[in-house]
Amino acid sequence: MDTLSPTPRTTVNRGKNRAVADRAELHAVLADALLAHLGVIAGAHPAVLPTAFGVDLDGPDAGGSLYLHGSVAAGWLNKALEHDVCVTITELDGLVAGRSAFHHSMNYRSAVVIGRARRVEDATERERALATIVDHMIPGRWDTLRPSTRKELAATAVLAVPLAEASLKVRAGGPGDEPEDIDAGTWGGHIPLRRVAGAPVPDPDSEGKPAPADVARRAAALGAEAADLGAGAVLSG
Amino acid sequence: MDTLSPTPRTTVNRGKNRAVADRAELHAVLADALLAHLGVIAGAHPAVLPTAFGVDLDGPDAGGSLYLHGSVAAGWLNKALEHDVCVTITELDGLVAGRSAFHHSMNYRSAVVIGRARRVEDATERERALATIVDHMIPGRWDTLRPSTRKELAATAVLAVPLAEASLKVRAGGPGDEPEDIDAGTWGGHIPLRRVAGAPVPDPDSEGKPAPADVARRAAALGAEAADLGAGAVLSG
Repeated sequence: MDTLSPTPRTTVNRGKNRAVADRAELHAVLADALLAHLGVIAGAHPAVLPTAFGVDLDGPDAGGSLYLHGSVAAGWLNKALEHDVCVTITELDGLVAGRSAFHHSMNYRSAVVIGRARRVEDATERERALATIVDHMIPGRWDTLRPSTRKELAATAVLAVPLAEASLKVRAGGPGDEPEDIDAGTWGGHIPLRRVAGAPVPDPDSEGKPAPADVARRAAALGAEAADLGAGAVLSG
Repeated sequence: MDTLSPTPRTTVNRGKNRAVADRAELHAVLADALLAHLGVIAGAHPAVLPTAFGVDLDGPDAGGSLYLHGSVAAGWLNKALEHDVCVTITELDGLVAGRSAFHHSMNYRSAVVIGRARRVEDATERERALATIVDHMIPGRWDTLRPSTRKELAATAVLAVPLAEASLKVRAGGPGDEPEDIDAGTWGGHIPLRRVAGAPVPDPDSEGKPAPADVARRAAALGAEAADLGAGAVLSG
């Protein structure tokens, strides 16, 4: 197994039993999640921003590349380059209803990546990184789109964060209750949570047109009901 | 309208059209969301941690109190008290499939709270804060649970962050595409996403017992199908 060798910064101190050391599991969480929270040091306080992301395990950074993008005018961009950043990617899987307040918890998979962000300047890598981010949202989409214009590319900053220094914590299942609460016959368990897509919604200018195959497939893969997708949905092609 | 008067730290610079200034909308997002990401300055880098939270709009902090809890042994606890923190609470509502890579986006509601965390020491406020956190997960649950023991309370740290300095960004709907891409007849739209609960899962010691009313109600409120809840589900009481 390719392990996540923890550094002092990525050693899980609390809830060690939830630390997962298999790098393949980290990759699986990154593949499954849609949203990252990027933490930067913004002077005297941290700033945490929600953002899309993409992953290229064969990217040029140690451990592979986590790609982020944003406007070249974004205030956080320079801050992200001045200090190391922390990118946390969490999927919430459930609410844990313990037999006592103390043993209430949440089920989740959470990846924490700490590292120095690199601004991607090479045109080929920038394009590949942007494709990775778009295809992370909707697999196969990049190849269906017109090429980006020079103006669009000039307005977009791309950052790469090495995946080398990362940790993964996973909690699943029911509560870890006290024996006396279990003996008392109190109910304990959890409420599973999952993300579900609805059918693709065309904007007013696409009203009545079926969604393209990549979009319909993505909605279906994220759990949209076949019935919701409608007769017009194109799942192949 | 009670407005979010932005400070330099919470002024939305990018995507100003997505900034929402109504404090009531901030409160609605906090009420709806289940997961927060806490950002702290951990020496030379930020650390971003997923965490449960609770809100008491009548709490003693300016703008109301955002409550977080953790183990007294957690490494982030002292770091959270040394500098201001940033708590970001994001709900992902959709994937926006633009007609160009540039106009791909995500629909979301994201609250950012920046402030100095206060360690809650007063016994009455600590208990109220913990009740707020548990009831945020599963409304009404606190009153069904046995009182916390002295040992449990001693092991738990509670932090309060004032809600005064906060911003809210909301994106909804389809892409903001270029007129020429729309004229070309390319499809544009979005895939809506929502969080859905399954039926409560009893742990092995509660096998076959119906979930208590508060847990069943929470699962139903989060979209668990009545059929999934099963004949044993107790929705009243």
